[in-house]
Formats: sequence, structure tokens, C-alpha cells
Amino acid sequence: MGRFRFTITMSLDGYVAGPNPSLEHPLGEGGERLHEWAFAVRTFRQAHGMEGGATGPDDDVAAEWLEDIGATIMGRRMFGGGPGPWGNPLWNGWWGDDPPFHTPVFVLTHHAREPLEMEGGTTFHFVTDGIESALARAKDAAGGKDVALGGGAEVAQQYLKAGLVDEMEIHVVPLLLGSGARLFDNTDGRQTAYRCVRVVSSPSVSHVKYRRAA
Amino acid sequence: MGRFRFTITMSLDGYVAGPNPSLEHPLGEGGERLHEWAFAVRTFRQAHGMEGGATGPDDDVAAEWLEDIGATIMGRRMFGGGPGPWGNPLWNGWWGDDPPFHTPVFVLTHHAREPLEMEGGTTFHFVTDGIESALARAKDAAGGKDVALGGGAEVAQQYLKAGLVDEMEIHVVPLLLGSGARLFDNTDGRQTAYRCVRVVSSPSVSHVKYRRAA
Repeated sequence: MGRFRFTITMSLDGYVAGPNPSLEHPLGEGGERLHEWAFAVRTFRQAHGMEGGATGPDDDVAAEWLEDIGATIMGRRMFGGGPGPWGNPLWNGWWGDDPPFHTPVFVLTHHAREPLEMEGGTTFHFVTDGIESALARAKDAAGGKDVALGGGAEVAQQYLKAGLVDEMEIHVVPLLLGSGARLFDNTDGRQTAYRCVRVVSSPSVSHVKYRRAA
Repeated sequence: MGRFRFTITMSLDGYVAGPNPSLEHPLGEGGERLHEWAFAVRTFRQAHGMEGGATGPDDDVAAEWLEDIGATIMGRRMFGGGPGPWGNPLWNGWWGDDPPFHTPVFVLTHHAREPLEMEGGTTFHFVTDGIESALARAKDAAGGKDVALGGGAEVAQQYLKAGLVDEMEIHVVPLLLGSGARLFDNTDGRQTAYRCVRVVSSPSVSHVKYRRAA
């Protein structure tokens, strides 16, 4: 049986996005600095159609993460296109014709929409009946492989609070954002059920992996 | 001119003490687990009159921290003895006759009290006119050496918010406490003025040092 896991990059002061997210700064002001480590490594660059990139521990962690993912879940905000009903022309995600998921992707939304098939094996399914339903459908689609939670913070919080996450890997960067979206907020402290199973550190980021205690 | 610096150990979810602090658990429930790394290293053990302890990167960081401290500031809660007026018999701190500071220590309190001279060079001064006054007196007493902020979280927040901290080193342990006292709360985001100048990581803790940008 596959695991349900999520990974997210967090500033040392606890934020996974900066303040005042906008079209220009979808990750909030300063938020893109969170992901500098990821944009520097080969695996992430390849997955997003970019050349080059470093190998080493950060890249190893990124590569390990992508293994065995059979389906993906994400929030509407991460899929993008603004809040509210779907506009015209329809928003098809940030990622162009060939998104980097290559799996079925279940987008949590309040606004129903037909599935959207992209190139490279990514099909977006729009789920309007809640996080449990999205997880059940994703597990079904994953066929025994793992289900990855793409983000963002609010969705991660909801799944944590519901006790549904099997594993999480937090990438802590030594950046202080000061405000924005906190990961460990509105979780009822459910994160205490997780035990650290591995730490990999480089000068730019600490990758800390947790698993739910049995 | 000496710097004003503080160091504190924080759980990965942002807490520097656990929930429900009590006499039995002065660092809150689960809070003592934050400091397991410190109790394991030689420098910390020596400073607290204990034998043995590991050497290595965690010990090096602890030893470096203790260099060049000419005075210490701490909050009333860290000094202890409960809230409110000083009782009878007078509380003289958690640390016995020879506290591990070996410098003048300025205790922030609302309740005046005569200075308390201990063995080994530690004298506790009780400061009732606020954080700026305590810092001015500590700098004066330090004679050009550094002033260290002992804690706790609330006092660190006040000094951060006032923009008075020159340097801070956060020891992040891969522990999830779920609730308690957050370090980066009530700081008006003033931590964004700091830049990471060094990261030292071991499997049990990441030591991240920040300096205020010029």
C-alpha cells in the first residue's frame, strides 16, 4: 500500500510563502527565495525542463522524493487561476503543456470542472467533495504507488489536522521571511505524532524527514 | 564595542518551550527534549558541573558561544521563583551557589530587589525599568565584551522587536512540539533584518547564525 506524503520548503521562522501573494509573486513577497535550493539542483531543473544544475545531497533528496509517485494532490491556489469560478478562457495551470507531474493530479476546489488531460501523463481532476475524497481517489489512481501532496500550506494543514499524512519532508532554509503563510498553524498540534527519521543537511538547506509513529 | 547576541534552541515547528510550563516542567511539556543536544556536549556539561560529554561540531558551537561574554541578560521567568513579588525565603535562581554565567547577570523584572552576589563571578542585578535600561547597564558592565541574552522567548521577542539584537544563533532540533512558546511571534517581522552568516549541522541539530544586516 502506498504512502501519502508531502514535502515543502519552509523558512527557519516557519513560513512556506511570503506575505501578500499576487500574480507577480505567487509565493508572496520574498517567497521565491525559499526555492533557490531547488532551482539549483539537477533533478528539479530536469523535471521543469531546465538545463544543468548541481548534484550532491540536495539533489539526492529531490531525486528520492520523485520516486514511486503514482498520483498527486494539490490545492486550488497552487493550481492557480485566481479564486472563485473558473474563468474563460479556462486556466490550465502554471506549467505549460507538459506539467512536471506525469501522474493524475487531484486539485481541491469548490468549483467543479471536467478533467483536463495534458501532455506527458498529467491529467488534472477537479475534486469538490473534500480532502478525504481526493485522497481516496488519488490512492485508487496511484495503484499501490505513493500519493504526493503538492501543496500549498493550507491543504497540508488540513491533511495534517485530519491525521491522514504518513510521511513528510520539510526542507528548512536559513531564511527569515518575517510573515506570510505558516506551515505549522491550524494543525491542532497533530505534528507531534511524527518522528524524525532522517536529516540531510547542506549549507543551503536542511532536509528533515518525518514519519507518523505507528 | 561588544555585540548583543542571543542563542536559543527551537523545535522545527518553531517552539522554544513546550505547552503548560510548571515547576516540574519549567520548559513546558516535552520542552526538555529541546536541550538533549546541549546536555550531550562537553562544553555545556562542564559549564554546569557535569562530567564527560561529546566533542565535535555541536560542542564547537557551544564553546564558541561562551567566548567573550562580559554580561548576561535574562527574563524573570528564566531566573525563576514564580511570578509576582519576591517571596520569603528569597529565590536565588535554579543554579545553586555557583551559577554557570560567571558574569554580571541582569534580570528583567517588575519587582525591585537588591543585587545578589553568588560564587564564581555571577552577580544577579534586578532591573525594573525595561529592556533598554538592562541592555545599557549590561553593556557598561561587559566592558567591551559581548552581552548575551539568556532567554526566554518573550524577552528575546522584545529585544528583536526593538531592533536591538546584533547577532543570534538558533539551534533547530528536528522535534515537533505542536504547541508552547513560539520564538518568532510578536516580533513585527523584525527578524527579516538578519542575514544567515553560518550553518553548522549535525544529525541532532542545525546551528544557524544570523547577523543584522548593516
